[in-house]
Amino acid sequence: MKIARFEHQGQLRFGILDEEASELVVLFGDPLYTGLETKDERFKLDEVELLAPVIPRSKVVAFGRNYGEHAREFGNEVPDEPIMFLKPNTSVVGPGHAITLPPQSERVDHEVELAVVIGHVARNVPRNEAKQVIFGYTVANDVSARDLQQRDGQWSRAKGFDSFCPLGPWIETEFDATKGAISCSVGGEVRQSSDLSHQERSVETLVEFASSVFTLLPGDVILTGTPAGVGPLAEGDTVTCSIEGIGELSNPVIVRR
Amino acid sequence: MKIARFEHQGQLRFGILDEEASELVVLFGDPLYTGLETKDERFKLDEVELLAPVIPRSKVVAFGRNYGEHAREFGNEVPDEPIMFLKPNTSVVGPGHAITLPPQSERVDHEVELAVVIGHVARNVPRNEAKQVIFGYTVANDVSARDLQQRDGQWSRAKGFDSFCPLGPWIETEFDATKGAISCSVGGEVRQSSDLSHQERSVETLVEFASSVFTLLPGDVILTGTPAGVGPLAEGDTVTCSIEGIGELSNPVIVRR
Repeated sequence: MKIARFEHQGQLRFGILDEEASELVVLFGDPLYTGLETKDERFKLDEVELLAPVIPRSKVVAFGRNYGEHAREFGNEVPDEPIMFLKPNTSVVGPGHAITLPPQSERVDHEVELAVVIGHVARNVPRNEAKQVIFGYTVANDVSARDLQQRDGQWSRAKGFDSFCPLGPWIETEFDATKGAISCSVGGEVRQSSDLSHQERSVETLVEFASSVFTLLPGDVILTGTPAGVGPLAEGDTVTCSIEGIGELSNPVIVRR
Repeated sequence: MKIARFEHQGQLRFGILDEEASELVVLFGDPLYTGLETKDERFKLDEVELLAPVIPRSKVVAFGRNYGEHAREFGNEVPDEPIMFLKPNTSVVGPGHAITLPPQSERVDHEVELAVVIGHVARNVPRNEAKQVIFGYTVANDVSARDLQQRDGQWSRAKGFDSFCPLGPWIETEFDATKGAISCSVGGEVRQSSDLSHQERSVETLVEFASSVFTLLPGDVILTGTPAGVGPLAEGDTVTCSIEGIGELSNPVIVRR
């Protein structure tokens, strides 16, 4: 099931995408809290503005170097322990919303990633129970100011700017996260192309690791790392991140002056 | 004015501390959103349980190496640009609540810090206007798993565990953040003792820097760095962080097994 969050005539709504992927069946409320009861109301996809399918109440937890091919493109190895960092919820934007290049950076890169949306309060969850706290999956772009990332040591600035966490287009609640094509193109040119089966650590392992440190709250998001092929974005680009079985997330790129 | 958040008979309330610092005059709601109108209702301080005076909706932004003396105790210098990192809102606890030592670390340190509570949506705020977006100040303990901090590179795990951000005992809305004694003691023994005037960068400079990256939301908290003298906590300790003119924040230390 694909669940979108959208705006229609100034109102924020949630809806389930129908089988033809042309209409949204409206839900009574936020499915994370009020379940999946539907109203007798539908909108065509092209009548609404899709929004980020979730705004984390607490945090976007992200993992670095989870594809060996990407670790090696910067001369790194896959670490013995996961590299974990945080992106603030203020960095989240939705499909079609602009990624804004800030004046502090001269190189901002795209990074397509599989995003896990947490559905339940989760603390110290063993990997074999991790699926029980996962609400679903969406596509993310872990936008990164590469020059600041390399200079700062800490990645919070480089990866935390407003608009640096596009999420969407919707949440897929039934998804096999162990395989499927993952790719990113800029202006139609494929830049990243890999498969989820190349992830070094499973989604369940990452949920176990994160929840052994932080309590995860419903709506928190876990980004699971990017494959090789990251590269710079420029003003006027449109960047499209895709995961087979979930969908496509496209964002234009503008400059903050 | 000192504003506390507290629990009384299962209800969460906010209140203003009276001049004798013995009673709380109850507010109608959260002063960040509903202002400072008081009810005709008072509680004695010892009748209530103080809570963290604020839970950030978005983030705790923290700065490293903002006192030269502390930077040097680990062989570092004050950096040319501020070192900024994030702690999740799930790390926040209140006065008297336990700091829980996690099994992943063998050395967890105290770090007393001045905490700035943001009062308004703030983006690209120049330092000479920073005071306008500050609601007030409180005391923080930027609890840090030193071994993980040194091993991980990224500080999100080391500083992000549940209970690793005690805040309190209340928010002081009128405070001169340029001077005043700041100290930390463990079991009555003074470990950190300095003065806010030793901060390398002013609160206004840090607000300018943070708001040039992230939109700050009401209730977001900025931690402004710790002075020299950080040291380990052990099971059974009580750690007390104090800032002259604000108050004392004490927390017991327990072990997670």
